[in-house]
Amino acid sequence: MARADSVGGSFFLSGEECLRVPHFGLGGAISRPGCSCLPVCGRLRAMGFLPSDESERSDAVLFAERLVFGPLLFQGVVSLRRRGVLQKLLRRGGEGATLETLLGELELSRYGLTVLLEAGLAAGVLQVDDEGVYRLARVGLLFERDPMTIANLDFVADVCYRAAAHLDASLDSGEARGLRELSDEENVYQALSTLPEPAKTSWFAFDHFYSDRAFKDLVPRLSARAPKQVLDVGANTGRFACALLAADERVRVTLADLPNQLAVARRELEERGLSARAHFHPIDLLSPELSLPEGFDVIWMSQLLCCFGEEDVLRILRAAARALGPGGELWIVDTFWDRQKQRAAAVTLMGTSLYFTTVANGRGRMYDSATMLRLAQEAGLSVKSVEDSLGLGHSCIVCGSAR
Amino acid sequence: MARADSVGGSFFLSGEECLRVPHFGLGGAISRPGCSCLPVCGRLRAMGFLPSDESERSDAVLFAERLVFGPLLFQGVVSLRRRGVLQKLLRRGGEGATLETLLGELELSRYGLTVLLEAGLAAGVLQVDDEGVYRLARVGLLFERDPMTIANLDFVADVCYRAAAHLDASLDSGEARGLRELSDEENVYQALSTLPEPAKTSWFAFDHFYSDRAFKDLVPRLSARAPKQVLDVGANTGRFACALLAADERVRVTLADLPNQLAVARRELEERGLSARAHFHPIDLLSPELSLPEGFDVIWMSQLLCCFGEEDVLRILRAAARALGPGGELWIVDTFWDRQKQRAAAVTLMGTSLYFTTVANGRGRMYDSATMLRLAQEAGLSVKSVEDSLGLGHSCIVCGSAR
Repeated sequence: MARADSVGGSFFLSGEECLRVPHFGLGGAISRPGCSCLPVCGRLRAMGFLPSDESERSDAVLFAERLVFGPLLFQGVVSLRRRGVLQKLLRRGGEGATLETLLGELELSRYGLTVLLEAGLAAGVLQVDDEGVYRLARVGLLFERDPMTIANLDFVADVCYRAAAHLDASLDSGEARGLRELSDEENVYQALSTLPEPAKTSWFAFDHFYSDRAFKDLVPRLSARAPKQVLDVGANTGRFACALLAADERVRVTLADLPNQLAVARRELEERGLSARAHFHPIDLLSPELSLPEGFDVIWMSQLLCCFGEEDVLRILRAAARALGPGGELWIVDTFWDRQKQRAAAVTLMGTSLYFTTVANGRGRMYDSATMLRLAQEAGLSVKSVEDSLGLGHSCIVCGSAR
Repeated sequence: MARADSVGGSFFLSGEECLRVPHFGLGGAISRPGCSCLPVCGRLRAMGFLPSDESERSDAVLFAERLVFGPLLFQGVVSLRRRGVLQKLLRRGGEGATLETLLGELELSRYGLTVLLEAGLAAGVLQVDDEGVYRLARVGLLFERDPMTIANLDFVADVCYRAAAHLDASLDSGEARGLRELSDEENVYQALSTLPEPAKTSWFAFDHFYSDRAFKDLVPRLSARAPKQVLDVGANTGRFACALLAADERVRVTLADLPNQLAVARRELEERGLSARAHFHPIDLLSPELSLPEGFDVIWMSQLLCCFGEEDVLRILRAAARALGPGGELWIVDTFWDRQKQRAAAVTLMGTSLYFTTVANGRGRMYDSATMLRLAQEAGLSVKSVEDSLGLGHSCIVCGSAR
């Protein structure tokens, strides 16, 4: 029987891998009777996705109408924030402000401010008392003070909102048809450097908000393993390579990505004086004959596999399995919705999947770890450990070659 | 001191009108110390808009992220409904269905069904158990079985979604800039007959869903007053005139609206054999010199005043006050968000206000009754009674001339 030790949020599997996971309709679930190495089901229950969730208990109609009028209320909250109404109310704290007071301080008509304040009430970000004094609700505070909520709001408003109206066309075609609202490119990765503002700024703010916090936790862990050679697959703008090279003066990093991305990354590393220990290896991860260079202590894939459909993930993982030598490790860093402590995080990730469907490339999604672990096994990898709660909800799956 | 009798949901004011209402920042609130004729504040508290609402108690972050990813989750739920996933799950009841089972019954790729099912989990319309069996949550049931939720969903999806992205431009210009997504006309009323599908069908389904249910309650009440002559201001397609003429064979109805609307209404009445007791009076309610014909027992304005800004409402009410003879009554029928029993209804109305801002004409909104009662008083009308809970949340304000 496999043994599972829980060490500080990590679940190290020893001996034969045995993954008790809910299979979520994924035919080949890896499940053995009586074994529960990865307590994913318990987390799902804690997140409320199992029967008897909050929607059974609370006012289902209120919940449904908030969902139905969600797009209108969303735009109302965006305007409340961007026109400074939330900020004014935050500054006034418990004192609050009437419509008359706010009118004198904002560039909004009486009509405009009225419909926005009432949208704020409906959305739950504002409260009003008998004297007509408006105050921020606790939820409203998040839209001024919580950088995650703000990064998410800007991302949905500027990158996803219009594109999401093309969900059906995207599902039918298998292409991200919503991207046309922003670019003529085939996928968002080719479009990034030429995205119109404010979409471009909001895209990078969203991406970096999560990756920066994950790198902060992960660079020390990787550095502690003292790898001599690291292959950074999908290196993008070189953000992780910079962080690792700056933190560990012994390591050498090979960045692998499309040539145009490598050019951006090379400039970045040169500007920071970190290019001496960097190498650049052009690859196309969508190539059917994909092969990765060999001889690395660690192959690193961060926020990468979510950008691909399952078939491509399997092909990339197989290439990694072939390239790994004895003792070599593949580190898969991603956000898995079934690994989140907070239901809010899982909701965020499942919502972001529809960004992949409608904006990114029509194939990627925020995976559950059950699917990723199954794909790793199918690719001939052996899972050595899974650590959760890195950065803001990232997990790190460390694999060796099963050979 | 004024006396307030509560009779079966009605609040009849006798003697001097005295309205204890929260003024919501509307400068000229009608409020007298120590008097609480209209217990509106209590209703607001019941609806949770006053401090210590549910957002203080529940998980504020989950609430905020559902709002932020609301547009994506909304589109996911629209697809789940329109592609038949919700219906399949409803039919299977407690048995539920796995992704594999659903795949065999639906025209969706495995990828497409996966992201939709997970969006359904995030939106709270679906649940999943440890075996990967999906079932409708109570909220999800509403999207298949509740005609109000379905009418609202189609209205937001087909009429409002894209337009709502133009909220800021609409607020700045005072025009419904989102209408351009659907029509080149200046306002939605001129655009109605030429709206593209499915927007046209969804618009009328939404409008009629609420008005039909209100008329069912109101026609008997009006008929019981045995009016000989009724002026139907803003008669639109003649729907109310038909209902009243069919129910009361003594009444004569004069329909007042723009000439092109009257032509539609006339055809409708002729087809139903109801035109013998109908008259047609062309007016432009936006005319600065608006006057209404005199000599009517009842002037009727149903779902009309919400289409106008406050200045226009005041002008129309003044015209009604001038036209009312002794004993004549103005019946104002509308949905007021501060008169709703359910918070869900208030949320729906406040959300619909942003439809008026971005799609209809940039000036209308779903009023609170405090504002409407203040405008009626300013117009020289005396409020005789207010009855709530007609149809699905309509109120009827009956006024006489204050002269």
